[in-house]
Amino acid sequence: MASRAPTKHRRSNDPEGVRRRVVDAAYAAFSTQGYHATSVHDLKREAGATGGALAHHFATKKELGLAVIRDRVAAAVEETWIRPVLAASTASEGIQAVFAGIIAELEGQGAVSGCPLNNLAIELARHDDDFRVSIDTVFVRWREAIADKLKADLSAGAVFDLDPEAFAVLVVASYSGAMAMAKAQQSAEPLRVCAEQLARVMCKRSPAVGL
Amino acid sequence: MASRAPTKHRRSNDPEGVRRRVVDAAYAAFSTQGYHATSVHDLKREAGATGGALAHHFATKKELGLAVIRDRVAAAVEETWIRPVLAASTASEGIQAVFAGIIAELEGQGAVSGCPLNNLAIELARHDDDFRVSIDTVFVRWREAIADKLKADLSAGAVFDLDPEAFAVLVVASYSGAMAMAKAQQSAEPLRVCAEQLARVMCKRSPAVGL
Repeated sequence: MASRAPTKHRRSNDPEGVRRRVVDAAYAAFSTQGYHATSVHDLKREAGATGGALAHHFATKKELGLAVIRDRVAAAVEETWIRPVLAASTASEGIQAVFAGIIAELEGQGAVSGCPLNNLAIELARHDDDFRVSIDTVFVRWREAIADKLKADLSAGAVFDLDPEAFAVLVVASYSGAMAMAKAQQSAEPLRVCAEQLARVMCKRSPAVGL
Repeated sequence: MASRAPTKHRRSNDPEGVRRRVVDAAYAAFSTQGYHATSVHDLKREAGATGGALAHHFATKKELGLAVIRDRVAAAVEETWIRPVLAASTASEGIQAVFAGIIAELEGQGAVSGCPLNNLAIELARHDDDFRVSIDTVFVRWREAIADKLKADLSAGAVFDLDPEAFAVLVVASYSGAMAMAKAQQSAEPLRVCAEQLARVMCKRSPAVGL
C-alpha cells in the first residue's frame, strides 16, 4: 500500500458510503495482512476517508474490527458456505460444491490468504473477549447450519448413522485446518484431499451406496 | 510484560545459554501473542540478554523467527504428536492418545492459545516465502509420520480401505481447525468432538469391529 498514491479525501454527504468503504478496506486488510499489521492510517487512505469521518463511525480500531467480523466475515461465511449448503440437495453435495468452488477460486487467484474467520480467530480470540465472542458466534452459526442440513438429510433417509452436530464440527474443523495448510503450501491441495476424505466418510453413511 | 521488572542483563560466557533463553522466550511469545505483536525489546528483557548478545545470534527478528520454527515448533510437533503416534500400537490409538493428552493439558491450563504451528502458519506463511517453507516443512513431516504409521497398520491388517497420505491430511487438518475453534470458544470441546469423529471413521475401517 505504501507505493500507491493516496486516494483523495472526499468530503461526503454519504456517511454510509464512507462507512462501507472503511469496513471494506478493513475487511480486505485484516483478513489478509492481519488486524495488528494493518494501520488505521493506511485504512483511511485506502478508503479515502478523513480521520474525522472514520472517528464518526468507529471510535476505536477495535470497534472497526468488531464491525468487520459482524458485517463482513459473518456475511462471507453466510454467502460462501451456509447458503450453498442449505440450497443443495444434500449436505454432502453442498459441502463438496463449496470446497470445489473455493479450490477453483484459490487456483484462479494463484495465492492462498486463508479463511478470514480462521485468520482472525487465531490472531484475536485469545486476548480479547469481545473479539472472541464475535468470532465464536460466526463459528456457531456455520456449524449449526451444516448440522441443520444433516438433520434434514437424516429425516429424509439420505444419510444414516451420523451425529449432525458432531459431524458439522468435523467439517468446519477440517476445512479450517486444510486452509491453514493450504496457506503454508500456497496450494489448494490440502483442501482437495480433505473434501475427498469427507466425501468418502459421508458416502459410507449414505444408503445409496451400492445401488 | 510491561508491568514486570526487567530481568537483569547477565554478562555471560555461555553464548549457547543466551541463545537458548532468547529462543525460548521468542517461542513462548510468538506462539501465544504472535510474531508481529512481540517486540524484540521485550524478548531481550525476558531472556536477560543484551542487544549485542542477541545480535550475535540473530542479525534480524526474522532469523529469530525461523530459528523458533526450526528448533522449537518442529520439536513441539515431534514431541506432542509424532513420537506418541509412532510409539502407539496403532495410528488410531496414537491419535486418540494425543488428542486426549492435549485436551487434558488445555483443561488444566484453563486457556487455549492454539497450535503454535497453525498460529504461525496463519500469521506468517502468506507474505514471506522463507517462513512459509519452514512452516510447510513441519506440516509435511507431521503428515508423513501419521501416514507412515497408517501404512504399517495397513500392512499389519489393523486397518483397511484407507489412503494413508490422504487420511493423514484429514487428521492434521481437523486437529488444526478444531484448535482454532477451541481458541474461539476457549474450550477444548471442538477437539473432543473431532477426536470422537476421527475414532468413528477409523473404527469403521478396522477389521476388529464387531468382534
